[in-house]
Amino acid sequence: MADSELPTRPKPEETGAPAAPAAEGDSKSASKNAAKKAAKEKAKAEKAAARAAQEKAQAAAQEANDTAKHLYGKLPESDDVNPTTRFTDFTDEEKEVTVVARVDNARVQSAKLAFLMLRQQGQKIQAVIAAAEPISRQMIKFTGGLNVNSIVQVTGLIKKPEIPISSATIQHLEIHIHKVYMISEAAQMLPMQVKDAERPPPVETADDAPQVDSEGAPIVTLKTRLDNRVLDLQTETSQAITWISSGVAQLFSEYMIKSGSRWIFTPKLVGAATEGGSNVFEVKYFKRTGYLAQSPQLYKQMCIAGDMENVFEIAPVFRAEDSNTHRHLTEFAGLDFEKTFDHHYHEVLEFAEDLLVFILSQLKERYAAQIATIQKSYPKAGDFKLPKHGKALRLNYMDGVALLKEAGVDMSEQERFENDFSTAMEKQLGQIIRDKYDTDFYVLDKFPMAVRPFYTKADPSDARFSNSYDFFMRGEEIMSGAQRINDITELEESMRSKGLDPTQEGFEDYLNAFRQGCPPHAGGGLGMNRIVMFFLGLPNVRLASLFPRDPQRLRP
Amino acid sequence: MADSELPTRPKPEETGAPAAPAAEGDSKSASKNAAKKAAKEKAKAEKAAARAAQEKAQAAAQEANDTAKHLYGKLPESDDVNPTTRFTDFTDEEKEVTVVARVDNARVQSAKLAFLMLRQQGQKIQAVIAAAEPISRQMIKFTGGLNVNSIVQVTGLIKKPEIPISSATIQHLEIHIHKVYMISEAAQMLPMQVKDAERPPPVETADDAPQVDSEGAPIVTLKTRLDNRVLDLQTETSQAITWISSGVAQLFSEYMIKSGSRWIFTPKLVGAATEGGSNVFEVKYFKRTGYLAQSPQLYKQMCIAGDMENVFEIAPVFRAEDSNTHRHLTEFAGLDFEKTFDHHYHEVLEFAEDLLVFILSQLKERYAAQIATIQKSYPKAGDFKLPKHGKALRLNYMDGVALLKEAGVDMSEQERFENDFSTAMEKQLGQIIRDKYDTDFYVLDKFPMAVRPFYTKADPSDARFSNSYDFFMRGEEIMSGAQRINDITELEESMRSKGLDPTQEGFEDYLNAFRQGCPPHAGGGLGMNRIVMFFLGLPNVRLASLFPRDPQRLRP
Repeated sequence: MADSELPTRPKPEETGAPAAPAAEGDSKSASKNAAKKAAKEKAKAEKAAARAAQEKAQAAAQEANDTAKHLYGKLPESDDVNPTTRFTDFTDEEKEVTVVARVDNARVQSAKLAFLMLRQQGQKIQAVIAAAEPISRQMIKFTGGLNVNSIVQVTGLIKKPEIPISSATIQHLEIHIHKVYMISEAAQMLPMQVKDAERPPPVETADDAPQVDSEGAPIVTLKTRLDNRVLDLQTETSQAITWISSGVAQLFSEYMIKSGSRWIFTPKLVGAATEGGSNVFEVKYFKRTGYLAQSPQLYKQMCIAGDMENVFEIAPVFRAEDSNTHRHLTEFAGLDFEKTFDHHYHEVLEFAEDLLVFILSQLKERYAAQIATIQKSYPKAGDFKLPKHGKALRLNYMDGVALLKEAGVDMSEQERFENDFSTAMEKQLGQIIRDKYDTDFYVLDKFPMAVRPFYTKADPSDARFSNSYDFFMRGEEIMSGAQRINDITELEESMRSKGLDPTQEGFEDYLNAFRQGCPPHAGGGLGMNRIVMFFLGLPNVRLASLFPRDPQRLRP
Repeated sequence: MADSELPTRPKPEETGAPAAPAAEGDSKSASKNAAKKAAKEKAKAEKAAARAAQEKAQAAAQEANDTAKHLYGKLPESDDVNPTTRFTDFTDEEKEVTVVARVDNARVQSAKLAFLMLRQQGQKIQAVIAAAEPISRQMIKFTGGLNVNSIVQVTGLIKKPEIPISSATIQHLEIHIHKVYMISEAAQMLPMQVKDAERPPPVETADDAPQVDSEGAPIVTLKTRLDNRVLDLQTETSQAITWISSGVAQLFSEYMIKSGSRWIFTPKLVGAATEGGSNVFEVKYFKRTGYLAQSPQLYKQMCIAGDMENVFEIAPVFRAEDSNTHRHLTEFAGLDFEKTFDHHYHEVLEFAEDLLVFILSQLKERYAAQIATIQKSYPKAGDFKLPKHGKALRLNYMDGVALLKEAGVDMSEQERFENDFSTAMEKQLGQIIRDKYDTDFYVLDKFPMAVRPFYTKADPSDARFSNSYDFFMRGEEIMSGAQRINDITELEESMRSKGLDPTQEGFEDYLNAFRQGCPPHAGGGLGMNRIVMFFLGLPNVRLASLFPRDPQRLRP
């Protein structure tokens, strides 16, 4: 029953699958009409059973002549289990190995020869099968006819091919097949081919865009890849990108833990939309309305007020922003930290700068192989410039304004203090800084107070500015942070000056935390997906998210 | 403006606080009435200014006579910054230190003597101030009159007290105060005292429960503590519990990363309520309805189908279950993993057993001090029994049934295969196993198929059972896991047999993942808060959550 699509192979006794729905339907029919229908179905079933018996008999006759019948087909149950080897563990030594891999391609060359391209997490190796006792023509037909993307267990001899296999990633070795068993069969028709998804998606995805490239290969749009993300994840490039994402989270937590920071889990279900009402998702919370936290900001500050001193969180962040750009998601992985300091918020700023230098330099060191793979599709992946001598470049916001002015981009007095850089200005500044300072990562400090949230501490020496900073990679923002106001009176004043009402429902618990005394502190929030995107120079943040969410996309 | 509650201390020039709202209102008034009102307010403001000037003059006169005026009050701005020391770094050596700490208690003994109890993350040390040149009576009054919970910077000499200070946690040392400056002042009235929250909450919280204990100290209910969680977090016990939570997450990720697992971030916003419609939170997602993921189950399996082989996630899990028990939350931290295997799902089960043994044994090793602290309030915290020889005890579900039967708890044939243990039975079984096998952690394998979700693989040797397991600590479940069905036909059959329709919207992407071929795999999901709760023997899971969420509670 379970393997009904593979009628020539033995029936699985072990699946424990219930009887077919048709049979179940029979027993439940009561009325005359239903009985009639059942009789019809019974006749149909009998006919099908007769045909199946016939096919089985034919198959049995074929099998009887098949010298290789134990060497292919369904994976046999056996206590004699072969340990499996990974492609990446292969050596040049000629020896028999057993591998589990996807069929990336299967092709029958002749009645006596077939080829498989096998794939393991994006790595590809060729396997060949040739008719020679005991390998039968039936086995060659089976092997060459395997559905693409099926998972098979292959046992064979590793050998050097006469000429390197240019279409494989492991080109100097091939497998000479002795056995090939089906582990999980893929459907004959797939919505896209993994190998077609190996090439980067076109930047334009207009409806009238060409469907094939100059060599006639299908062009797989970003939409198609994301609609079929499970297949897309199987590409060499996606495998490498997901390792980089994993690496960013790992390196962040490693640095934080080493610094004595405590891992926190703050609630995502909150009672009030305290951080700007329009961009918040509403949740039906039993008989009332709840909201999804837009950041852990207020809660991590409450942890600081709760004497936790140095905390970090790795958790989803939700933004109900109707932004359909290359760098916005409605849900992304946030890497947040908050920390007390002794004398000056630059203690925390330096801590955060060193964090980023650690993450970015360790990515280069630990994930060099993955970066090289991604570079084949996205050439910028390998060229991210780290600051020299392991220390971040820190400029003030007004230094950025001056650099742009030198380059001919002048901001009016009002723009300087009440706006902020536009995305285009940010990118241009990124290029200017790369040219001048030879780094793709830098920090701008002292942003105008007018563009920062209410909890930001004003610069004590010039209230037009604030003790706040943004981090940039390739001219795009990856982190926002600041010293926070820790005095209740100052905090309430700041709220009022931003048009917020401190007595509004939802602020009570937050403000009480300051009424009970709170040490000076600063912190920041990083977007993990953006770090991955800008580090690798990917054209779209969706490529740096497993299952991206945007205003249009809520699946898969 | 910022320090208006501290009129005797200098005005902060550096706060950058905007002008008072009243003044802003003036400039905007246009009509006659408004002008009249403004004039009135102006007169009022002038009167207030005159009074403030008078107070300032008085304070200045007092200050002129104060030999210690530079040694206390508001923290002075200075480039000559003292490095601060933590209580835990104190040695017996008599030397001057500077500390930043909370005032746990302040008391004036006489005009010439005052005491502070200082607190740092729950650790307490006594500080004493005595009048002796240059320390003035004003300084003693200031010190002894500090609001409880204020954060101060104290410089003084560490000395041995004549008799140990029994009310402190560091009893053999005290600080002789030279300087004391305010960093963050707490309000005079707090909703509860941190020291009252040090004692465990009463189990019963009925309205007519006593308000004070036998010694006259206020009884702080769990509700009061959670309503004022920021204060509650400052207790020695909460500090230690939050370290244990942090430790569980850290140890989980450490083990996973060491095993070559990839850290994943799956979406919490999902398009369909695929895991049981009634317990899912609904979200307004732009113009349609979304849901909050009840687990990453379907997504982590899709990652496996996407060839990621070994993945883990640390993320919030949302359950719209109207359960008001000691162990249910509507949002909790989930520790999830999913992994392929070569030959048998027990490869993954053993991997998970070793994970738990690693976490629990390392908690004991790395957090011994925190456990000892928690034990003062919750005596079971230190007595969790680990399995001998570092290997988990694994029994089958039916072994559990038999152990209960021996103890007089018999389940009918139907109960055995269609129900599962009740919570009471689970607890009893936990006690039986503790007595018999001397362990508080164990695993039950082979649960009845009828009680497990549709994606669970049936036991090939007996379809009444399944290849699924639960993990228990002190007789309460902390993890559920299983081998998953990886064959599309078998999966669809299983869905239908559980009354689910595979063609229902929302299952499409999940089922397609199997149509494209998926390797055999197994996994599990742990509740972090429950691990903390049961490891420490806490009476309520809310004590093991920073800001707990339940059907009644959506704040703080």
